[in-house]
Amino acid sequence: MTSAHHIILLAHGSSDSRWCETFEKLAEPTLHSIDNSSIAYMELAEPSMETIVEQAKAQGANQFTVVPLFLAAGRHLRKDVPAMIKTISEEHSVTMRLADPIGYNPQLGLAIRDVVQEELAKPAD
Amino acid sequence: MTSAHHIILLAHGSSDSRWCETFEKLAEPTLHSIDNSSIAYMELAEPSMETIVEQAKAQGANQFTVVPLFLAAGRHLRKDVPAMIKTISEEHSVTMRLADPIGYNPQLGLAIRDVVQEELAKPAD
Repeated sequence: MTSAHHIILLAHGSSDSRWCETFEKLAEPTLHSIDNSSIAYMELAEPSMETIVEQAKAQGANQFTVVPLFLAAGRHLRKDVPAMIKTISEEHSVTMRLADPIGYNPQLGLAIRDVVQEELAKPAD
Repeated sequence: MTSAHHIILLAHGSSDSRWCETFEKLAEPTLHSIDNSSIAYMELAEPSMETIVEQAKAQGANQFTVVPLFLAAGRHLRKDVPAMIKTISEEHSVTMRLADPIGYNPQLGLAIRDVVQEELAKPAD
């Protein structure tokens, strides 16, 4: 990846800090192994996508891939997020691509199976 | 797992069939590899948890583990789902355990990293 390219892991956001902490933990392996990657929130929490775009652009990024930390696409991913991306990319003169929500990738279904297998391995109450 | 134990993969539910199809696909590897497992929806889609409990009980299940297909816990998982589980387990005389949402398991963070790596491997537009 060139340093001009930046990955944004986009979570919904919540006023509940425990909710955001869960997403920060989920993002950790990605942020740790991929330079030029950040987490951002669609609403109700900081940093916003726009904040990240501004910061990364100041460091030379002009191309962004937004990976939604959503299992499925509802109204937010079909309408709100594309509209936000259009506005931000125009205002900041950068290219932004919206990737599929993570739940569209078969890796997620396999991870869910592994999680359930772990549940089954736990001793019964 | 004894046949008396049944796994319920619990998704939120939506009136948008595309949304439910995504979760059905996400559930497939689990349903395929674990006998006595089903998907259920909290609201807005069928089957409900209660429908699954009734069906599975008719086939001998009396112990249920509910695994939420949610990345993080908000009001639904902290309040609504525990209340539903209490009502259903009392009405049907079964034991129901609510597991952590899948996003609490480190497997999910690793899967997200792999998904992002795949995004980066795609040719630029």
